[in-house]
Amino acid sequence: MSHNLLKGKRGIIFGALNDMSIAWKVAEKAVEEGATITLSNTPIAVRMGQIDELAAKLHAEVIPADATSVDDLENVFARSTEVLGGKIDFILHSIGMSPNVRKKRTYDDLDYGMLDKTLDISALSFHKMLQVAKKQDAISDGGSVLALSYVAAQRTFFGYNDMADAKALLESIARSFGYIYGREKGVRINTISQSPTMTTAGSGVKGMENLMDFSNKMSPLGNASADECADYCIVMFSDLTKKVTMQNLFHDGGFSSMGMSLRAMNQYSKGLEEYTDENGHIIYG
Amino acid sequence: MSHNLLKGKRGIIFGALNDMSIAWKVAEKAVEEGATITLSNTPIAVRMGQIDELAAKLHAEVIPADATSVDDLENVFARSTEVLGGKIDFILHSIGMSPNVRKKRTYDDLDYGMLDKTLDISALSFHKMLQVAKKQDAISDGGSVLALSYVAAQRTFFGYNDMADAKALLESIARSFGYIYGREKGVRINTISQSPTMTTAGSGVKGMENLMDFSNKMSPLGNASADECADYCIVMFSDLTKKVTMQNLFHDGGFSSMGMSLRAMNQYSKGLEEYTDENGHIIYG
Amino acid sequence: MSHNLLKGKRGIIFGALNDMSIAWKVAEKAVEEGATITLSNTPIAVRMGQIDELAAKLHAEVIPADATSVDDLENVFARSTEVLGGKIDFILHSIGMSPNVRKKRTYDDLDYGMLDKTLDISALSFHKMLQVAKKQDAISDGGSVLALSYVAAQRTFFGYNDMADAKALLESIARSFGYIYGREKGVRINTISQSPTMTTAGSGVKGMENLMDFSNKMSPLGNASADECADYCIVMFSDLTKKVTMQNLFHDGGFSSMGMSLRAMNQYSKGLEEYTDENGHIIYG
Amino acid sequence: MSHNLLKGKRGIIFGALNDMSIAWKVAEKAVEEGATITLSNTPIAVRMGQIDELAAKLHAEVIPADATSVDDLENVFARSTEVLGGKIDFILHSIGMSPNVRKKRTYDDLDYGMLDKTLDISALSFHKMLQVAKKQDAISDGGSVLALSYVAAQRTFFGYNDMADAKALLESIARSFGYIYGREKGVRINTISQSPTMTTAGSGVKGMENLMDFSNKMSPLGNASADECADYCIVMFSDLTKKVTMQNLFHDGGFSSMGMSLRAMNQYSKGLEEYTDENGHIIYG
Repeated sequence: MSHNLLKGKRGIIFGALNDMSIAWKVAEKAVEEGATITLSNTPIAVRMGQIDELAAKLHAEVIPADATSVDDLENVFARSTEVLGGKIDFILHSIGMSPNVRKKRTYDDLDYGMLDKTLDISALSFHKMLQVAKKQDAISDGGSVLALSYVAAQRTFFGYNDMADAKALLESIARSFGYIYGREKGVRINTISQSPTMTTAGSGVKGMENLMDFSNKMSPLGNASADECADYCIVMFSDLTKKVTMQNLFHDGGFSSMGMSLRAMNQYSKGLEEYTDENGHIIYG
Repeated sequence: MSHNLLKGKRGIIFGALNDMSIAWKVAEKAVEEGATITLSNTPIAVRMGQIDELAAKLHAEVIPADATSVDDLENVFARSTEVLGGKIDFILHSIGMSPNVRKKRTYDDLDYGMLDKTLDISALSFHKMLQVAKKQDAISDGGSVLALSYVAAQRTFFGYNDMADAKALLESIARSFGYIYGREKGVRINTISQSPTMTTAGSGVKGMENLMDFSNKMSPLGNASADECADYCIVMFSDLTKKVTMQNLFHDGGFSSMGMSLRAMNQYSKGLEEYTDENGHIIYG
Repeated sequence: MSHNLLKGKRGIIFGALNDMSIAWKVAEKAVEEGATITLSNTPIAVRMGQIDELAAKLHAEVIPADATSVDDLENVFARSTEVLGGKIDFILHSIGMSPNVRKKRTYDDLDYGMLDKTLDISALSFHKMLQVAKKQDAISDGGSVLALSYVAAQRTFFGYNDMADAKALLESIARSFGYIYGREKGVRINTISQSPTMTTAGSGVKGMENLMDFSNKMSPLGNASADECADYCIVMFSDLTKKVTMQNLFHDGGFSSMGMSLRAMNQYSKGLEEYTDENGHIIYG
Repeated sequence: MSHNLLKGKRGIIFGALNDMSIAWKVAEKAVEEGATITLSNTPIAVRMGQIDELAAKLHAEVIPADATSVDDLENVFARSTEVLGGKIDFILHSIGMSPNVRKKRTYDDLDYGMLDKTLDISALSFHKMLQVAKKQDAISDGGSVLALSYVAAQRTFFGYNDMADAKALLESIARSFGYIYGREKGVRINTISQSPTMTTAGSGVKGMENLMDFSNKMSPLGNASADECADYCIVMFSDLTKKVTMQNLFHDGGFSSMGMSLRAMNQYSKGLEEYTDENGHIIYG
């Protein structure tokens, strides 16, 4: 059911690959809520993924771009304002990739050329996007920009590797640029720190299934799905959240505020002592 | 314009006093968005304030209650589910008061009887509300509970006194109960950390106007208003934010992520060195 | 080996019960480092514990006191400055107890009289101590005050119950009073957030052993011991840390900055998928 | 007065330029506390600064190195273990520089080649240092590594520009590598977030004097000096802090926990309303 939360708004969605992508769901819901949008992804992702199918369904133009290229980004913003007929009201940055993770380089054996790529693709692309947009004055007053992050920016998860550093950098850029773009154009910039999600990108992370099980059992509401994340993005794009900026917003069923849950401990303690009382009932507390 | 975000939902709003109150605005917008509600405040606030006027306008019953009284709260929940015809979907806790502040006791000269009252009224009332609700099973699955907080829970503001400790306690209760109520009934519990707001309560804080000026100049988007806060409450009550729980959500124009802004420093440095370049232009950076 | 870090300093140690107590170790090391001290605990703890033995060994006077009683605290400070021959340079607050935990009241079934006691004993006693000290001008310029806390103040641990709220309140009091006592007398106030420790108090927490196993496997350096905590207290009392104030200092082998470690996941995933590569080697990352 | 806190320990100090440098003070105090050390800085800093004078005084070898060069760092560690006669016990990373700041590029007009340099010099150098050390197994079990940071990693300060992002990245690297190096070799890695300090580097930041005045008036204990920072580094290198890792430790007189102090507000409100009572006395609270 649509609430018309984005009626008449124009947006750009970066990073939709296939129907598992969070960006894919955001694109669908944004249009459902009344927005017109363009889609962007790398040329190779455009060829390999199903973005053309999404574009057709949503009557959205696909503008291929390497988000680390200032030239490409200039084209995305120029073309988007042209085809959408005005300034942009909302942007989603759902971009991240670590060549070190792909090549199974451990964190104490990073390739520094690859690390530069991790940071450029996953974090600096966000700065480039914002700088290009501001130079073109392409975002409307009160516009809303989101990037997707993960709690590894605050706490270390084994195997997440240099992506943790990239996410910390991404969140810092959101704050730093949020100040500048806020004071001068009223644009708000936030990151959403999402539960681990079984997207194509997520599925590359080592031990993803066990991590998702742990995360799910730790979170009182369970892991947040891609669909639910898209809902949250919609409200952060809407006019109902106009004074929220420079924040990292956890959308994770409560995981970030948990130290240890009973459910996770029951799994953890298998083979250790049981959490049951003298009658065999699970002990709550 | 209504988005029907709370269509068919039932809510209880604690703490509306007059049309400056955040709770007042939340009540109005909740009904506008399709909810039916009850209102609660202390007997004295009901007599002194204009809540009856609000109740009449919104066709809402007023249920007087001292929120530190478990009996009174039991009545609020029992009566609300009765008049609204079912379980409660959302609750706003907008309650806080410090007798020490009122009596101008400084933080190093607190009266401990008064401190107990500050904590009981401003923080423990939130636990009591949740415990009563859970014992009555009065909140529907997926329900949303909010309390209003302030950044003084994280950082010290001179003159905010024992209310800072009360807010820290309030936010902790939101996490602790958010875990329990989330895992067992899918209820989410969050606090919204709002800009300083010139409500009747806010106007009692020492040097409130200067603080609001500082806060406003520090925040890239300026202080958030009571109206904007009410909008944010609505989205947090809606089904679009179902996996957000145990969070303290800053709604403050960016204040919480600022160390020092140019605008605030320009005011601060009056009589100190100017922030202009050799041509007299203000320097941005 | 002594470093003479507290040579000529005077201190008060609250909360030593027996040789498992962190406060016990702090007392021993403080004297070893050149300090003279007094010891305080509740009358019942003085009778039940072995504090007299410690006092004899350290040539320290024991001053029984209920730390929730302003009168008793006035006596502790008056008597301590008298027997130690001058103002106090350092104080340890190692006090905490929850009747709700003892009586196995779950967090959604708290007794509010007991909750008041939890907060009074575990948190408000710290404010009372500081207010009494300041009124007597009993702490020397540059003095250092510490209270012991736990990460449950930030993240929810099942079973830790209302002690989590007490610790959040305790840490807030450290900030609030740290501001006042710092600006006026140069006194620094901090909390140390210690690993779970198998003291007499710690052993009352439900599932303590499994929690300690989890905490130990999550922490890259393992859990911090009571002895190591005492070392950290000594440096925070010394003149080498004179500009650290209003902080919550994690002393936990890294736990607080971990999201998931390989060691903890290997225990967690027993019965789930193994973290080994195709050759059966454990995968690092 | 020496406490022999680093007796027999071996260290490497990166970043001493002249006697205003924090690294300079750390080097002096480390030797005073019984350590033997080597010094490293860039070839140009070695030529331009007074490091040779420091080296002579401390009987320390200077090993010039570009800290962004893996080769140079390999040489620093190989040579240091050789001249010091064993594995390294402590390391200070006091390195940071932004070409964008130097060239007065504002944050919305960054040069991306320069941004890469800012990140490489100020943050990635820390990873390189640790990776090189670990590959050479050059740090002893229980060793301690520190990097200097600033609160701009958490909150935005106008004019601090891309250094804020570099510090956020630096702190993330400390956590990420702290996990790996901790679990495998017992090495602890932390950052110290220091008050603004009038070093040669600090004096390049725009409006540094006014910022230091604000910071000083906000901090209940005033700004921490370079000397005091060096003291804190010594205790973090000592064996008394062996379970502290993956932390960002604020050494700032309380600034990081302040929202607004009376002293800062009195300066801020000049020309606004006065903070005095009806008798003209300044109001405390």
